[in-house]
Amino acid sequence: MSLSMHSASAPVFTRMLGNTLAWLDKAQAHAEARKFDTANYLGLRLAPDMLPLVRQVQIASDGAKGCMSRLAGLEPPKWEDNETSLDDLRARIRKTLDHVQSIPPAQFEGADSREIVIPMRSGDALRLDGETFLKHFALPNFFFHTCATYMLLRHAGVELGKMDFLGR
Amino acid sequence: MSLSMHSASAPVFTRMLGNTLAWLDKAQAHAEARKFDTANYLGLRLAPDMLPLVRQVQIASDGAKGCMSRLAGLEPPKWEDNETSLDDLRARIRKTLDHVQSIPPAQFEGADSREIVIPMRSGDALRLDGETFLKHFALPNFFFHTCATYMLLRHAGVELGKMDFLGR
Repeated sequence: MSLSMHSASAPVFTRMLGNTLAWLDKAQAHAEARKFDTANYLGLRLAPDMLPLVRQVQIASDGAKGCMSRLAGLEPPKWEDNETSLDDLRARIRKTLDHVQSIPPAQFEGADSREIVIPMRSGDALRLDGETFLKHFALPNFFFHTCATYMLLRHAGVELGKMDFLGR
Repeated sequence: MSLSMHSASAPVFTRMLGNTLAWLDKAQAHAEARKFDTANYLGLRLAPDMLPLVRQVQIASDGAKGCMSRLAGLEPPKWEDNETSLDDLRARIRKTLDHVQSIPPAQFEGADSREIVIPMRSGDALRLDGETFLKHFALPNFFFHTCATYMLLRHAGVELGKMDFLGR
């Protein structure tokens, strides 16, 4: 009847980050077939007042890293947002995967009721228990940015379908 | 350390479906300000070979309904996909919310290990245990279609931001 806070988070991040790597491979093939610079993908936006693809990947990465760290009671590591190529984005995703996998499940003991404090841009902080944080903030936020990345590539003509989104 | 299969699913669907209703209200206000027919939203696509907005909402609805029914060991009810207006879509979302809330948590007893059989378009069936189904199929699939709806409205100029996506 129950799943652990670790099993409800780490495998979801792991699978979706792996899927994102596969989408970038398809994006690379598409660019090679059309002979355009793969770096062009990084600036794509769905609207002029939305963040570009490079930021969508960085924020998805931050979301997975931050969720894992916070649920484990650790300070999330700070990473520079300095990616300028598809290869840089792949490295960022692999680094995120390593971080997700580096935290042992036992460190999530009590994570459902741990107080999570999220600094907001406004200077305020959002305070949530671990379970609410995971279900209503961390997972939706991670899916938002992962899905934005997928939609940007799909909109750009990369051959993706829902099975690529879900992965296997 | 653990959350229940019910608490990991029903509240997530409830919140995101409620958020979708709020996006449709903003879409309505945007259409009224610009004096266009709100039914125009239903045909929007991000690419000509992607499903239009009306289908994104219907499939998100089916995803929430199907997940709740299947985890509870029930046959998902079949609903016609006959929505032709924003009001129809609102009614569909409210009906989905009612369905999500109609299944008592106790009916999820043993749902993590229940065998879930998902009929595929190919005629085959996907067989997963309940926990894998929830984490790697039902939730990602639901977020995919919910996020597609958001991105279509955002791309169309509706005033939405990530706090609208996450809701409260």
